[in-house]
Amino acid sequence: MKVAVMGYGTVGSGVVEVIESHSDSIPKKTGGEALEVKHILDLRDFPGDSHEALFTKDFNDILNDDEVKVVAETMGGVNPAFDFTMKLLKAGKSVVTSNKELVANKGLELLNTAEENGVNYLFEASVGGGIPIIRPLTQCLAANHIEGIAGILNGTTNFILTMMIEKGMSFDEALKIAQDKGYAEKDPTADIEGHDACRKVCILASLAFGKHVYPSQVETQGISDITLEDVSYINCAGGVIKLLGQIKYINEDSIAAFVSPAVVYNGSQLASVKDVFNAVLVRGDAVGDVCFYGPGAGKLPTASAVVADMIDCAKHTNRRKIFGWGAGDEDYVVDYKSTIKMPFYVRAKSDCAKINSIFSDVRYLTRTGQPSDEVAFITDIMTENELKEKIKDLNVINTIKVTNY
Amino acid sequence: MKVAVMGYGTVGSGVVEVIESHSDSIPKKTGGEALEVKHILDLRDFPGDSHEALFTKDFNDILNDDEVKVVAETMGGVNPAFDFTMKLLKAGKSVVTSNKELVANKGLELLNTAEENGVNYLFEASVGGGIPIIRPLTQCLAANHIEGIAGILNGTTNFILTMMIEKGMSFDEALKIAQDKGYAEKDPTADIEGHDACRKVCILASLAFGKHVYPSQVETQGISDITLEDVSYINCAGGVIKLLGQIKYINEDSIAAFVSPAVVYNGSQLASVKDVFNAVLVRGDAVGDVCFYGPGAGKLPTASAVVADMIDCAKHTNRRKIFGWGAGDEDYVVDYKSTIKMPFYVRAKSDCAKINSIFSDVRYLTRTGQPSDEVAFITDIMTENELKEKIKDLNVINTIKVTNY
Repeated sequence: MKVAVMGYGTVGSGVVEVIESHSDSIPKKTGGEALEVKHILDLRDFPGDSHEALFTKDFNDILNDDEVKVVAETMGGVNPAFDFTMKLLKAGKSVVTSNKELVANKGLELLNTAEENGVNYLFEASVGGGIPIIRPLTQCLAANHIEGIAGILNGTTNFILTMMIEKGMSFDEALKIAQDKGYAEKDPTADIEGHDACRKVCILASLAFGKHVYPSQVETQGISDITLEDVSYINCAGGVIKLLGQIKYINEDSIAAFVSPAVVYNGSQLASVKDVFNAVLVRGDAVGDVCFYGPGAGKLPTASAVVADMIDCAKHTNRRKIFGWGAGDEDYVVDYKSTIKMPFYVRAKSDCAKINSIFSDVRYLTRTGQPSDEVAFITDIMTENELKEKIKDLNVINTIKVTNY
Repeated sequence: MKVAVMGYGTVGSGVVEVIESHSDSIPKKTGGEALEVKHILDLRDFPGDSHEALFTKDFNDILNDDEVKVVAETMGGVNPAFDFTMKLLKAGKSVVTSNKELVANKGLELLNTAEENGVNYLFEASVGGGIPIIRPLTQCLAANHIEGIAGILNGTTNFILTMMIEKGMSFDEALKIAQDKGYAEKDPTADIEGHDACRKVCILASLAFGKHVYPSQVETQGISDITLEDVSYINCAGGVIKLLGQIKYINEDSIAAFVSPAVVYNGSQLASVKDVFNAVLVRGDAVGDVCFYGPGAGKLPTASAVVADMIDCAKHTNRRKIFGWGAGDEDYVVDYKSTIKMPFYVRAKSDCAKINSIFSDVRYLTRTGQPSDEVAFITDIMTENELKEKIKDLNVINTIKVTNY
């Protein structure tokens, strides 16, 4: 089967590499069909690349080639990936992607277009890189009512937090190392402010509960406010700080979904996820907690998930995989701040007498070098709005959600 | 769609419960079809059970009912489950199962019979209970060459080892508590001697590498020789003892597969798997290490995996899922003792001078209360046969493999 790759960056070049290095085994997985890359679309030149003969700068070379049945879109971004993908699906070609931004923003239209045209739009690589999560969530856990999902969905921020927790580095030092190692971009905003994790939360929520959730509906807070003092207090509490995407089922017509730093207690499978690794924990009513762990990014891990989707397309020519969701609506994702109760970590310039007059039941934390006018504690469960009301007259330095995963 | 359940024990009654408690959501997953339990086969009586009208003691009531398209086999054991399953597949019914003993021993015949008759034989619940592992391994990781698999595949032994490690209980005390909690059977042999884990290793190895591996080919050692002294030394080494099933790819015509206690260093995702939880770590050439974690047993977790397979059958009526493997052979699983190199933990009545004269490079371990005539250490990598040769004149108390997962 002839295939094409759009975007020859890290993931796209990995896709070509994985297809070539697994040419012996892929036909065994598809039931006979080999995958052969016929076109590679990229506006850049790659002089000396061994695939020089395959490069094109003209999308129409792929669109109009009837031999090409499956296309990997590894361009990233919404434009022109959306336009290209729509045209390919309408032309009867299946498309597989690692492009979380596109799936999170335009997944509904793309899935509907795929269905109308009897082809597949698959996106295993868009959440968790190489970690199998889309199929396990939709197929293996199909007999569960999903109660919630919590995920460490961004490797860069998890690396930074790991360096802060284990090496005592400051946020800025850890970010610099992440950039030096190539884990973080020069402009690290999308990672450290949680936008990347937010897109993955949208995809997981849409899949798990059947209605499209858009990035604008998911309140997102990054890790740039986390300090070593917070890390130290939370170590005293028996936990670690992770950037978590959390999704909670409320009822048929509403869910909560948010991205933020969160205290995860040691003993949770999420607490032991270190460095650039990702993990997704799914809580089902029958199965309880299951957790999927692995490399959330990287050239070959992500590429291997893209190629697995291509293999699935090749195996199921002329029949569609049922993955997808329906339309969402504005009120579908509720304001978690007024609905979801949880404990909070609070650090403030204050004293115990004052805190005890506000909160009925807190657990105080300590750290080496703690100033006498600083307190840190874990509250009882309450909504974030209730917390805000309670602390409105306090000189608060930081607050962090405490998760129950 | 009418379905039947054979065996109304823990898992079977859970299957009926999950189907009933998810009657609203299942049709959304199948694409419209509800699942309706028409027959429950069990030789026992269940007076007062709300499903009394569905019980039968006659297998032919299921076999000869043309309305029944999918049957859950949750009887356990090879006989009569094998005979019943063969007849059902030949009659054009799909069968799903949690019966690892049957899949490990007769999977090849059953999968071939399913293929010949255009029906499905699915067994997600047979490895790792509720943890999705069969589909992730065969579909999501399809673009990987699997290099190895290591799994904590038995909850009972993991619970016992956790109690020994965290509470300082002896093996016998921990076993007693496992029995009191219902985790271990009165006759706990199948769990503690590793036979249950061995069956799961067979299924994983068969799926990952495409040739049937039988329990008799997998050398299996249980945990009954593990003492608190070993636990203590290995804590000093920065690790924990787990009962691991390990599978290693050697070449197209050979693999290694064995079940044994193993030292897992802290930092491995397998080290943090506690109590009755299970985990399977898969190492792929492209993806690296991915790990699947969750409840490896239990009524509703296992039942939810069985029902997910039934949903898959209902979704894919008249088309087959491609899961399976070919025939194995006697030489396919090699003698790991002469082929696989690894470090070993050794405890002996000896002294450092003697040990240093035998081993060129060891790492000594200590424990509280260590007698002056006892040494414990981690060796350099070598085969188990090489180790045996080296220690043949030593007064060895215990040796344990050290894993690289």
